[in-house]
Amino acid sequence: MNQSLHKLIVGSGYRLILCLTLISFAVAVNAQVIDPMPSWNNVPAKADIIKFVNDVSQIDSVNYVPVAERIAVFDNDGTLWSEQPPYAQLAFALDRVKATAAQHPEWIEQEPFKSVLAGDLKAVMAGGEHAILELIMATHAGMTTVEFAQTVKDWLATAKHPKYNRPYTELVYQPMLELLTYLRYNGFQTYIVSGGGIEFMRPWTERIYGIPPEQVIGSSIKTQFELRDGKPILLRLPEVDFLDDKDGKPVAINKFIGRRPIAAFGNSDGDLQMLQWTTAGDGLRFGLLVHHTDADREAAYDRQSSIGRLDKALDEAGQKGWTVVDMKTDWKQVFPK
Amino acid sequence: MNQSLHKLIVGSGYRLILCLTLISFAVAVNAQVIDPMPSWNNVPAKADIIKFVNDVSQIDSVNYVPVAERIAVFDNDGTLWSEQPPYAQLAFALDRVKATAAQHPEWIEQEPFKSVLAGDLKAVMAGGEHAILELIMATHAGMTTVEFAQTVKDWLATAKHPKYNRPYTELVYQPMLELLTYLRYNGFQTYIVSGGGIEFMRPWTERIYGIPPEQVIGSSIKTQFELRDGKPILLRLPEVDFLDDKDGKPVAINKFIGRRPIAAFGNSDGDLQMLQWTTAGDGLRFGLLVHHTDADREAAYDRQSSIGRLDKALDEAGQKGWTVVDMKTDWKQVFPK
Repeated sequence: MNQSLHKLIVGSGYRLILCLTLISFAVAVNAQVIDPMPSWNNVPAKADIIKFVNDVSQIDSVNYVPVAERIAVFDNDGTLWSEQPPYAQLAFALDRVKATAAQHPEWIEQEPFKSVLAGDLKAVMAGGEHAILELIMATHAGMTTVEFAQTVKDWLATAKHPKYNRPYTELVYQPMLELLTYLRYNGFQTYIVSGGGIEFMRPWTERIYGIPPEQVIGSSIKTQFELRDGKPILLRLPEVDFLDDKDGKPVAINKFIGRRPIAAFGNSDGDLQMLQWTTAGDGLRFGLLVHHTDADREAAYDRQSSIGRLDKALDEAGQKGWTVVDMKTDWKQVFPK
Repeated sequence: MNQSLHKLIVGSGYRLILCLTLISFAVAVNAQVIDPMPSWNNVPAKADIIKFVNDVSQIDSVNYVPVAERIAVFDNDGTLWSEQPPYAQLAFALDRVKATAAQHPEWIEQEPFKSVLAGDLKAVMAGGEHAILELIMATHAGMTTVEFAQTVKDWLATAKHPKYNRPYTELVYQPMLELLTYLRYNGFQTYIVSGGGIEFMRPWTERIYGIPPEQVIGSSIKTQFELRDGKPILLRLPEVDFLDDKDGKPVAINKFIGRRPIAAFGNSDGDLQMLQWTTAGDGLRFGLLVHHTDADREAAYDRQSSIGRLDKALDEAGQKGWTVVDMKTDWKQVFPK
């Protein structure tokens, strides 16, 4: 068989298999269209989501949006996974301080490290943002990007949340996983736009959420290109590059995506500007806030909380018609079983 | 018919059509596999590309790379379109100075604006990087992101390159357009990683190259989120945010994509670190430089050129086994007809 003919047949064969797979998948998932999000109760929030998705994705809809423009952005902490207490990245930083303390004898006398080593989380938190930043710089910088990603993966493989005694990557919201899948099935790109560290998230978001690294946006420290023994590396520097929170979220969305999303999902005032920016665009838009109302299954917090405060955004949701999820009544299940 | 059943049928029908389309497309494009890049002569550079693509995309290859990891990065100026003289973004800045001069009477006496208004490009260029930066800030900042994108589109619709008397968007390299398509057909994501302005490129890259905004990385100025009459805007500030050139390219690739590409395409020393970073990864990698050797059809420049200097990277290509395209002998055609 000549080479070109061989290629033609192999190529078509491959694509035929792809098509058959797509057909099976279509049938399988369409069966689910009956209930694309089974962990949601039949509440208005769920109906809002389905109505919006149908409105933008059905070709005969007046609100039809081409696939390329179906961009949805999600906050991470408190929107896709649990954020309190402690949130995973802080737990990681605390564990890294303990793991590397032997190389830093000065930490025994130096805050906030002293309190971390004494296991006094309250004293650490009393140091405020400055203390957190010091912990982040001491534990997230000074290594290559490849080394850091490996450290994150290793930590996630063994670390467990103290309250639930489960790996942090299991403390993701089952209803939101279903929402992500439902959106992607309907042609959406699902981006994370988080105040959390971009390189803290990328090693695991594809496995846990189905979101590839190039669709993860977050806060960052600077990196520097170097040739080390002739081999290029990127060194992580103890210097803030960008804080992807509040006003920073629309800025980052514009920088990384370059298109205005048509749907935004958050849970706190840190997401307010992202929802404003998204829903101010032309055509049909969708904004949603997860309201943590479930002290039994997860946590109840809003206007007075230091982590994940939801105050101004909750007021604005009422004025702007954004959907507010009442976790306690709207979600049949919180975490995956 | 009940609603769920209706959805099931409509949904499957839609997907069946998609599959039939894919099959037709597969047959149509596979016929092209006989020559996926007709504007290339049958030269070693072309054979190198095809061999690499087959090696990473055929499922039974030892060098097989999953689709999600098939990332290719392309410089823009001098790699995908012509860069001299003048390059498009400079021409845009010069035209914008002229178009807005009435609002800036002070420019009549002030360099580099004075020389721009006098049409003395040589004097402008003599001002070096500082002069260029001043022109960029004066013409690229002070408006919203939406306004700027519209200005770029309007300019491109009428501006013509003085030498070729054609719109700048027609001065793209036909062989590279075919290469982009060939890569995407084989599952690659094709990113631009350019020293040019990210928001200067995004308004047109999808139409011209098939590259959507979220796959365009470039140099940037800062933007600021504001509510203007209650409506959110992003204001472009006269302040450099990031220079996406040389050492900056691997930094930007890591920041925006979060994965190391497996193929990199450039034309100058500004692309050296991007090629180093890409080809130093594990597994099969591909690096390519476009060498401008064609004074008749386009331009001939390399080691001594002020724009697009190709010197160190050309030496390193020899040592590292990167493919070097000799534009004059390798390309049957330079620009689209």
